[in-house]
Amino acid sequence: MIVNMFASEIDTPALVVDLNVMERNLQRVARYARDHGLRLRPHTKTHKSTRIGRRQLEGGAAGLTVAKVGEAEVMLGAEPADLLVAYPVIGRTKLTRLMEVARRTRVTVAVDSLFAARQISDAAREAEVDVGILAEFDAGFGRVGVAPGEPLVALALSIARLPRISLEGLAFYPGHIKSTDEEGLADLEQVARIVESVLADFRRADIEPRIVSGGSTPTLFHSHRVRGLNEIRPGTYVYNDLSTVRSGACALEDCAATLHCTVVSTARPGQMIIDGGSKTFSSDRLPNTAEPIFGYLMEAPAARFFKMNEEHGYVDISKAETEFSVGDRVRIVPNHVCAAVNLHDQVYGIRGDRVEEVWQVEGRGKLQ
Amino acid sequence: MIVNMFASEIDTPALVVDLNVMERNLQRVARYARDHGLRLRPHTKTHKSTRIGRRQLEGGAAGLTVAKVGEAEVMLGAEPADLLVAYPVIGRTKLTRLMEVARRTRVTVAVDSLFAARQISDAAREAEVDVGILAEFDAGFGRVGVAPGEPLVALALSIARLPRISLEGLAFYPGHIKSTDEEGLADLEQVARIVESVLADFRRADIEPRIVSGGSTPTLFHSHRVRGLNEIRPGTYVYNDLSTVRSGACALEDCAATLHCTVVSTARPGQMIIDGGSKTFSSDRLPNTAEPIFGYLMEAPAARFFKMNEEHGYVDISKAETEFSVGDRVRIVPNHVCAAVNLHDQVYGIRGDRVEEVWQVEGRGKLQ
Repeated sequence: MIVNMFASEIDTPALVVDLNVMERNLQRVARYARDHGLRLRPHTKTHKSTRIGRRQLEGGAAGLTVAKVGEAEVMLGAEPADLLVAYPVIGRTKLTRLMEVARRTRVTVAVDSLFAARQISDAAREAEVDVGILAEFDAGFGRVGVAPGEPLVALALSIARLPRISLEGLAFYPGHIKSTDEEGLADLEQVARIVESVLADFRRADIEPRIVSGGSTPTLFHSHRVRGLNEIRPGTYVYNDLSTVRSGACALEDCAATLHCTVVSTARPGQMIIDGGSKTFSSDRLPNTAEPIFGYLMEAPAARFFKMNEEHGYVDISKAETEFSVGDRVRIVPNHVCAAVNLHDQVYGIRGDRVEEVWQVEGRGKLQ
Repeated sequence: MIVNMFASEIDTPALVVDLNVMERNLQRVARYARDHGLRLRPHTKTHKSTRIGRRQLEGGAAGLTVAKVGEAEVMLGAEPADLLVAYPVIGRTKLTRLMEVARRTRVTVAVDSLFAARQISDAAREAEVDVGILAEFDAGFGRVGVAPGEPLVALALSIARLPRISLEGLAFYPGHIKSTDEEGLADLEQVARIVESVLADFRRADIEPRIVSGGSTPTLFHSHRVRGLNEIRPGTYVYNDLSTVRSGACALEDCAATLHCTVVSTARPGQMIIDGGSKTFSSDRLPNTAEPIFGYLMEAPAARFFKMNEEHGYVDISKAETEFSVGDRVRIVPNHVCAAVNLHDQVYGIRGDRVEEVWQVEGRGKLQ
């Protein structure tokens, strides 16, 4: 939707994206991937919009990544040549739907159990489609993924024997790396060693992983240090957020998304209440800190957004750079933009002080 | 929508409500309010569905409460005789919409600033409608509400002079009371003293507050102890949640809403990953504890739901009562049901093992 209004006319609370910053973010990562010969399959969980998925593909992404089948269905709208479901798809209902997606584009699923692989194989056989598989291993995060070594090789060999699915390679997600500082880079080195040993195991077992898909946002621009890695699937980079800034992976001016809020009460001295709380921002905390901080106020960095209820944001303005009155507007960089996006039906794209476009978050709430 | 399926056939993750428990919860509070001569104007933020709002009205509620104008628009569908917007409505766009609501039913707004009251008066005059006002005071929570004493009386007197709005009474929300234990009841006593002094101030100023609206969920069934209070607007009681249980205001068997999830990975020994994370539950913590607990597993109370990402729930099953495999289903009582409901488009109402009805969360995401 093309609109003609000022950013200051957007009713609050609202999710607003600075298009110049977003475009710069998209270009930077596309260039990084190109320069290092890495396949880019961005995770769309951050934006959840076909419009942005399309831009990622136009910018050189080889495909798109989603978590849920419902998101895969939505992202078909961006016409990707290739869709990775980076999540174990379990259960007949979801698999039936996924096979419908697989009729329309190439689908790959990351799995960490033979149970999951068998279900996919059965569904693919019934639907007469082919599905790619990435065997997922745990690179230290301790979430999904089988242990590197024997269990991983065994899983890969079993997958290779199942009909209508083909083992395309490996996937991992080092979500435990939270920074680009010395500690973060040491963690990345450790991940690189794990990947190296996994690839050695696979050579010995005579399996050739065509795709080795991994990486995480904090060390995104260091992905080329992991030898053998040939695909990255970052998500947050499109908008960035306060967590990304704190991790060292971007600067504050790289944050494209802010929540625009209005001051609704200043009844308590030294404090203001804004019309955005956990229903607008999510209640996600910043990683690596016990500090209760729920966002960064562009208008007054020394103001402290310290507490939330669903519809109320509490901001300590006792040290703020400016005074605030009921009716004033503020722009806030959220802690975790992916979680915030999922709470909004639409996004306002601005350039300067004008709203240039409004788009729907079509993938919002696609839980299944 | 009337459906004919088993609860076990609901695709996960999903929000499921036990209708027997919900009906008992609705009846209990309706009876309590009736027995104590309290007006009941339930906050619909918990369920956000006209179907449940209608049941509350049928059960004797005098009206309904909402936070946002968008929720007021939705709740018109329940045909309430009376709608309280328990939130300062600021800005022309919202007020124009609110006046449309006020054409269709009696609307009251809680305000804590003359700024807000003036804006409402201006909008009401322009739209030629009448709007009721509750002057909101701070009973110790420190969120919205002017300080009791002179500021509150001054606000009330100013409101009374503005055209097309009428001062109906007072509102407060003692959200700082987190339990029904000795400490919680002592806090309630303190709130009662504040209310008493406020009412004395009003008598001296010759203002008669027809409505004194207050109370919070933890001490819901002690509301009659606050002398002068004549309206309660509880929300959570319809479903209850783990926070309510922990506060002492209900038992575990009074929790009507659970999230049904599927185990998607058991790759890591002693841990399972379920297909619900912060996008399904919200990342709201339990109050009054640093313990990272994100819900209560009905199938295995000793399992510990200790961490979440958006789509992943991490459950420590090292001490669990049962074994779990990929594909197993679990039912989990959430920490904070209001925040969870806002993440779901629909709710499955079950009786026994059958799904009896499915309803939409029409008020979901109504941020403005």
